[in-house]
This record gives sequence, structure tokens and C-alpha cells, in this order.
Amino acid sequence: MTDVYRAFYQGRRVLVTGGLGFIGSNLARELVAIGANVRILDALIADYGGNMFNIDDVRDRVAIHIGDIRSESINALVADSEVIFNLAGQVSHIESMQDPYTDLDINCRAQLSLLESCRAHNPTVRVVFAGTRQVYGKPDRLPVDERHLVRPTDVNGVNKAAGEYYHLLYHDVFGIRASSLRLTNVYGPRQLVRHNRQGFIGWFIRLAVEGRDIPVFGDGSQLRDFVYVDDAVDAFLRAGATDACDGEVFNVGGETPISHADLVKLLVEVAGGGRLHFVEWPSDKKRIDIGNFYTDWSKFASVTGWQPATGLREGLERTVAFYRAHLPRYVEAA
Amino acid sequence: MTDVYRAFYQGRRVLVTGGLGFIGSNLARELVAIGANVRILDALIADYGGNMFNIDDVRDRVAIHIGDIRSESINALVADSEVIFNLAGQVSHIESMQDPYTDLDINCRAQLSLLESCRAHNPTVRVVFAGTRQVYGKPDRLPVDERHLVRPTDVNGVNKAAGEYYHLLYHDVFGIRASSLRLTNVYGPRQLVRHNRQGFIGWFIRLAVEGRDIPVFGDGSQLRDFVYVDDAVDAFLRAGATDACDGEVFNVGGETPISHADLVKLLVEVAGGGRLHFVEWPSDKKRIDIGNFYTDWSKFASVTGWQPATGLREGLERTVAFYRAHLPRYVEAA
Repeated sequence: MTDVYRAFYQGRRVLVTGGLGFIGSNLARELVAIGANVRILDALIADYGGNMFNIDDVRDRVAIHIGDIRSESINALVADSEVIFNLAGQVSHIESMQDPYTDLDINCRAQLSLLESCRAHNPTVRVVFAGTRQVYGKPDRLPVDERHLVRPTDVNGVNKAAGEYYHLLYHDVFGIRASSLRLTNVYGPRQLVRHNRQGFIGWFIRLAVEGRDIPVFGDGSQLRDFVYVDDAVDAFLRAGATDACDGEVFNVGGETPISHADLVKLLVEVAGGGRLHFVEWPSDKKRIDIGNFYTDWSKFASVTGWQPATGLREGLERTVAFYRAHLPRYVEAA
Repeated sequence: MTDVYRAFYQGRRVLVTGGLGFIGSNLARELVAIGANVRILDALIADYGGNMFNIDDVRDRVAIHIGDIRSESINALVADSEVIFNLAGQVSHIESMQDPYTDLDINCRAQLSLLESCRAHNPTVRVVFAGTRQVYGKPDRLPVDERHLVRPTDVNGVNKAAGEYYHLLYHDVFGIRASSLRLTNVYGPRQLVRHNRQGFIGWFIRLAVEGRDIPVFGDGSQLRDFVYVDDAVDAFLRAGATDACDGEVFNVGGETPISHADLVKLLVEVAGGGRLHFVEWPSDKKRIDIGNFYTDWSKFASVTGWQPATGLREGLERTVAFYRAHLPRYVEAA
């Protein structure tokens, strides 16, 4: 089975939008490794996740297009792709609340542009969209499956929900073979750690590597699930090679939920540095806190056979080793 | 009970966005009648629903601002309003598929603008948003209640869903007292009948009044529920005066579902003109057809006491009488 869906990509023309970012670059590297003809489209917007170093050692084996998916110049790229992994986006919850219009432009308007380009130039292309568990907001029940209502608690979540709905709609109406993976907290090498506005896990790992205090709100008892980036990449590869995924949304989550406090304890142990530091909830964050959250990803498992292969300890070990070797590339570089 | 929530508006400063349109103008007129201080904001975009004739006989009792809710000039109006009924929008499914970007601008970006204005200038204002049953798409079960998943089948539905989520989010995060009414098929006086791109009911009524063939796809067996505009207005008034509505979404639907064919038969009988004319499903319409659809509005009934008061026959009689008297104002005028 493993070989079948990976073999699918041999020699295929595959476009990865946001391919210089965290998950996108890991996906592009894996596609190179399994013999795909890989094109990367990335706008390299300052302070997002794009980083040329992410693909440094495969740079001569991918075609890199620096540009925006809102530009008409993407039409030729879209027309010539068999599979599009659509990971371009603004991913900071915090920035989406400070500047909702930019988030709207990138997470809604840009998605419409890409899909309109598909409709006009490549209506039978397969597209796998990087959705997010954020669309659910505060859960009514746990674990959260795909039947749970969508009620985002930040602008980013609203716009990611709309971006996902566009994909499903272009599937239903125009036949584009689109699906969406609602990713939970993904971590691993090549994640942005330059600032803490894109979620806490990358930032925590940086603090551990740097031997600093790691701030956890309240008593740190909130549960979350985590996915190592290689498992997220594997999920994209499976969705992109599976007809039964078309027109569907799937949760992609972690094996066993863990509390914030236990996560940090494990991280400190693995890194041999950093310190768990409890701090009071800031009132603005407490108000929008979603409590415990973890996902039921059995739908995706049953359709594609996917399951997480990398445990949290192993994933953290690999991630810490990566940043120990390369931290300056992620702290100083643009 | 009736008197209490209507009395709430006496002397209150109320803003109706889209107040020259179909539902907005009926709402503005009723607010005038019950003694509110009514301001209308409307962009009068060509081919949408705005029509100065809609408020002709109350024109000297409302303040009319012709402008766009995306403009900064709305800040003073927002700051000075106690209740905002937010009905401005693009409502054509068909046009949203032909020009998704304009629909995005009006139904997403403009809603963000209004809410940002509320946050900055009037954070405790009450806002009632005109949502739509379109956000549900093709139903999994009937009747459709608010626990049903959202999966729009056109761009307009996606953008209306996002616009609604923004309202809920600004409630949850910033305390704006917003709610959304997911309206089913609303009909009645002052509806746009100049073209057939804003849903079929207004168009059917025009065809009946003009004594023409009324085209029904397939066997006309699909069920729908309908709300007379006075009942929709009553729903807005109740939501705007009820604290328990804040942060919630509600279906607002009709009493008894009726098939397309039976609706047209009743309309022809009431109008004494027009002819039911079965036509084959156009393939593009068949593909996105949602089948039977009607709503469970018991949540709204239990919170506000609302229920539809005008039966379909009576509503159609009043509507036909209105267009018989005023059709040229709706066919020729802009």
C-alpha cells in the first residue's frame, strides 16, 4: 500500500503552493525523493513561514516560482500540473485579528483565484487544500470529528473555512477534484520559530533549544493533539493519490492527546534544556480559549489507511536536533 | 409580548443597511411605523435590490445615506446607532458564480468593515445579520435545524457563511451583540422582479401578474418553505430586542413546505393569470440542485416567540395586489 500511493507521484507534475513554508517544504522534499516533477509557488511574504533554506539541499531538483497565487501568471503553472497541494496561506491567528483584510485577501480571495484558474485552465486537476482544525472553534464534544459544527473563534479560522468551502464547491459544481485536510497542531523541522505569532509549538521548541523559560497559561491542563510533519506530509500524499478523497474534508490529528504542561515537560526532557514556567492567563486570551481539543481522524484512516507513525517523543527529538543544527537559519534569516 | 418588543424601538436610533432593498425597506417602514429613529444605508448598486420607490411613502421620515458599508464614512452612523439591522449584500447565486470576487467584496469584506467599525466606534451595539439557508447546501436530513452542517453549493453561500461567522466571532471576542437569522425563501411586496437572477419566487410572481408561462424544472415535486416578508420583518424586530439572541444563529422558515408545482398552481389561482409550464432541468442547474429543503425554526420560536403569521395564500394575494398596483416601478425603474 505504501508503495502504491507513493509510486503514483513518480514523474508526475506536482505544484506545491506555499512550498517554501513549513509543511509545504517538507512535502516538496518528499515529492522530490519519490521522483515527482516538483514545482513550488511561494510569495515569500515577510514574517510568514517561507524560507529558502527549507529546500536548500533540493534546490536544483525543484522549479521555484516566487509569486502570488492571486497573480494571473499562475495560469500556465496550474494548466501544467496534475496535482496541486495548496498550502499557501496566512496562518497567524493573532495577525488575522489585527489585520483581518490581509488575512481575507490571502485566505479567501487568493483561494478563489487559484480555483478560478483551475476551472479555466485545468478543470480535472486534483487539489488538496491545507485546512485547519481551527474552523471548529471551541468543541461541543471530544474527540472532534468532521460532523462537528464549524464556528471559528478568529478571523483566520473564518477565512480558512471559506477557503475550504470554495474548494468543496468547485468540486461539486465544476468537477475539480478537491479535498481538504483539517490539520491539527503540526510540528517538526522547518517550522517558523522566528516569532510566536503562528501558534505555540514551534515557539516552545525554540525556547527549549535556547534553554529559556517556556510559558504555559494557567495550570497547563488543556489537552491537544499533535502531528509530526512527516505524518502530515504522508497525509497529503495519500489524499492526492486517492479518488475517494475528492470532495471530502478530513481531520488529520495526533495519536494521544497531551496536556500543555506534560508536553512542555517532555520537551524539556528531550531537549535537556528550557524550563516549564506557569503564567496567569492573559484576559484577552482566556476569553477566546477553546479548552481541550483533539480530533477523531478515523474517517481519513478508513479512506486512505493513514495513521500517525511518529510518536511525540521521537518527533520532538528529531525537531530539537534539527533546530540545534540550524537555528540561525530560522532566527536570523528571512 | 407583541407590544413589548415593538415598544423597545420607540425613539431608538436604528440603522438598516441595505434599507432600500426588499427586506430592508419593509423592515425600515415597520420601524418608522413603531416610532424608531430610522437611518438607511444603501449603496443602490445597479441590478441589486435597492429601489427608492420601496420607501416612497416614508421618505420624509427616514434618513437616507447612499453609500457603501465599506466606506469609512459609515463610522459616524455606526457610532450613533443603538441597533443595526445588517441586510446589505449581494444576493444572487448566479452572479456569485459568474463574478466571485464582487460577491466576496460585498458579502465578506464589507461585513468585516462594518464589524471593524462597530468594534472601534460602538462595541456594545446590537447587530442582527441577514443570513441565509443557502449556507446549508444540500440537506442531509429534513427539516434542517441549526445543528446541520454548513456546506454551501455556491460562492454566495460560502461568502454569506463567512459573513455570518464574522458576526459570531465579533460577538465572542469583542462583545458586539450580534446574531444571525438564516432566512429561507422570503417573498412579498418590494422584492426585485426586474430579472430572475435573485431566486425564483419574485420572478414567478411577476410572470403570474403578467399572465405568462411560469417555468418549473422537472416534475416540480421539490419541497420548499416560504416566509412572507412581514414575518421576516417581525423576526428581525424580535432578534434585535432580545438579549438571548446575541451570539446565536437561528433559522427563520415557513409553516408548511410546498412543492414548486403546487406553489405555482396556487399562485396562478390567486393571480388569476399565468400558466404552470414544466421544462426539462438544465444540466448545469440539475448538477447543483439541492432537492427538497425546508427548515426547523423551533429554536427561534422558543427564544423569541416568533412564528409565521401569514399563510402562503394570503401572502401571495397581498404580493400580487402590490405588483398589480406598482409593477412599472419594479420593471422599468432602477
